[in-house]
Amino acid sequence: MGQLNKNKLLKNLLHMSRQHRDMINIMPLQTGSLLTSAAKEALIEFGDGYSVCDFCLGSLVNIPSPPIKDFVHELLPPFLGADIATITHGAREGIFIIMHSLTHPGDSIIVDRNRHYTTTVAAESLGLNLIKVPNSGYPEFKIDVNDYIPLIEEHKPSMLLLTYPDGSYGNLPDAVKLGEIASKYNIPYIVNGAYSVGRMPVNMTEIGADFIIGSAHKSMASAGPCGVLGMKEKWQEIVLRKSKSHKNKEIELLGCTLRGVPLVTLMASFPHVMERVNLWNEQVDKAQWFSSELGKIGFIQLGEKPHKHDLLAFETPIFYEISQHIRERGYFLYKELEERGIWGPQPGMTKTTKVSSFAASREQLEYVVDSFRTIINKYS
Amino acid sequence: MGQLNKNKLLKNLLHMSRQHRDMINIMPLQTGSLLTSAAKEALIEFGDGYSVCDFCLGSLVNIPSPPIKDFVHELLPPFLGADIATITHGAREGIFIIMHSLTHPGDSIIVDRNRHYTTTVAAESLGLNLIKVPNSGYPEFKIDVNDYIPLIEEHKPSMLLLTYPDGSYGNLPDAVKLGEIASKYNIPYIVNGAYSVGRMPVNMTEIGADFIIGSAHKSMASAGPCGVLGMKEKWQEIVLRKSKSHKNKEIELLGCTLRGVPLVTLMASFPHVMERVNLWNEQVDKAQWFSSELGKIGFIQLGEKPHKHDLLAFETPIFYEISQHIRERGYFLYKELEERGIWGPQPGMTKTTKVSSFAASREQLEYVVDSFRTIINKYS
Repeated sequence: MGQLNKNKLLKNLLHMSRQHRDMINIMPLQTGSLLTSAAKEALIEFGDGYSVCDFCLGSLVNIPSPPIKDFVHELLPPFLGADIATITHGAREGIFIIMHSLTHPGDSIIVDRNRHYTTTVAAESLGLNLIKVPNSGYPEFKIDVNDYIPLIEEHKPSMLLLTYPDGSYGNLPDAVKLGEIASKYNIPYIVNGAYSVGRMPVNMTEIGADFIIGSAHKSMASAGPCGVLGMKEKWQEIVLRKSKSHKNKEIELLGCTLRGVPLVTLMASFPHVMERVNLWNEQVDKAQWFSSELGKIGFIQLGEKPHKHDLLAFETPIFYEISQHIRERGYFLYKELEERGIWGPQPGMTKTTKVSSFAASREQLEYVVDSFRTIINKYS
Repeated sequence: MGQLNKNKLLKNLLHMSRQHRDMINIMPLQTGSLLTSAAKEALIEFGDGYSVCDFCLGSLVNIPSPPIKDFVHELLPPFLGADIATITHGAREGIFIIMHSLTHPGDSIIVDRNRHYTTTVAAESLGLNLIKVPNSGYPEFKIDVNDYIPLIEEHKPSMLLLTYPDGSYGNLPDAVKLGEIASKYNIPYIVNGAYSVGRMPVNMTEIGADFIIGSAHKSMASAGPCGVLGMKEKWQEIVLRKSKSHKNKEIELLGCTLRGVPLVTLMASFPHVMERVNLWNEQVDKAQWFSSELGKIGFIQLGEKPHKHDLLAFETPIFYEISQHIRERGYFLYKELEERGIWGPQPGMTKTTKVSSFAASREQLEYVVDSFRTIINKYS
């Protein structure tokens, strides 16, 4: 690389702007993590590296100021319905930590077919044998948790995992029933709540799970990377076991995990997040209405119907048809939406699309539906 | 917990302030990670969760906008003197990733006695046998890298690690000579540069190391958590191996690591960091002068003399003596410094103290020395 080119790359780093900032956001990864104004304040206040650690006495989760200790030990466990909670770099890292603590290479674990890809990768990293509970296939792709039973009897797994909801279709399987199954067979049960914790009421104890995982940068109005992990008390000694040589350092957390500003945004947004989960019924109504409106213009909803989550997947054959006849191919949709101040569908994708109604108001979603309709009419 | 108490804890989360913000900072964990103004802008621009992922096509390190791809593949490797670079949650996570890729439980690895505690914890997590090269003891605590040789011959280790410099004394052992030793015995060699990468010129290839680790929230003007990892090309296939089922996802990174705003602060500060390492000689001069001035008021410097790094450890018997006779015990020093707008020594500690001269100007450090002198006079 020449010096001229290098200088250009360096210059590009100095004023990076985000073109989708402040647009109407229907991007499923992002609608649950728009920062609150309190979180934006916290970003500035604790932006400098390691500034959350000013009053650390050797344990991140016990720092008194900012009030990490109160947050992690007093507020987070009841919110998750857990006995014990801690913080992680994100949902996948939480799952890895549990797997690494509770399994041995060669063990089998049973997961749902709709799981996030990182569950597969974490298991691969640890040499685990992944047994997949199938879904019902097109168009609903539902998981029937009864299908865990024969696989449990066949494979004697070390662990069960359920993705609640999954990130592909926003399906909510019967997590409580799987809790009963896990209890009957006495197998540790993890709920991956990356798209539920912080959006909807979800309670680990009521589900009957051993662990619950949340993603703060997906669903808790937090900057990334940031996650939460709740567990039954009996697992604390195993998953949060301390180092033999460093008595206040958790081995699986490498001492401490999230030693930085995303944690403070999670905390600053938490009072808002606690309240918003109580409005979940309104979110479900809005999602169903949005899905129905999109159905009227030719979108075919996949996943459970009626839908119980804001994450919505659609087949959109009309957009695919258009993309076959124009120069921009699949990117026309992204460009048309961007011009209208809407950010969401994966750029380039047209056969199917995933959106989320969580962050936008009904008025904004009406505008989104109108925009889709206008775009279809323009190209048809 | 009652509702009243809970409401109080929630209210405390809404306007968290950092009392040490904008003070003269001589706290060793923090002096290398004060944000640049470009990084502060980036915090706001990319604060919302997953907003760095707008244009992700399946691989974090290949995102074109913000220019993560250019940063990771074009700018970072030459800066580290590495063939290949990637980003991590921090130095400890980078070390864990390498250990997990290259060792098996029961393997021995040889590390320096002055290592960071997380090296021990990562090895414990993976069931590794930690062999420690001793230091020279009080008062310099130096590592002689020749001491690796007999341990290599005895233990046939899978890996060598050197902390360069260590975080306790700021000692810089002969990393180049250990590179020659590692090469002769053909053992992978990791340099933990958490306190060097981003502060001083350090080049993995010139050292003859296989891996170099950096901590962006310690030494690269970045928010936390954030780290970098450089390696020789031959290790890419092992450490950055891809998932069998998800072809663009690195297994050890669980797909992607630092999917959030600290990465963007690292990038925004990088042009400044690239330049500041060239001023390292001035930093060393300043550190030596600061140490000498503190010596005049009774501080006894530990670690290498003359010192070659801004991280400085001292015995401070005078403060311990004072603490024995007053109500605040060891906390008087923290309080006195705080009143003077100085933040650094660990609150409560008086027998020894660690400080860093990296972020403060000579004028500010003169004020710090004067303040220490005034405090000593006040209580003596």
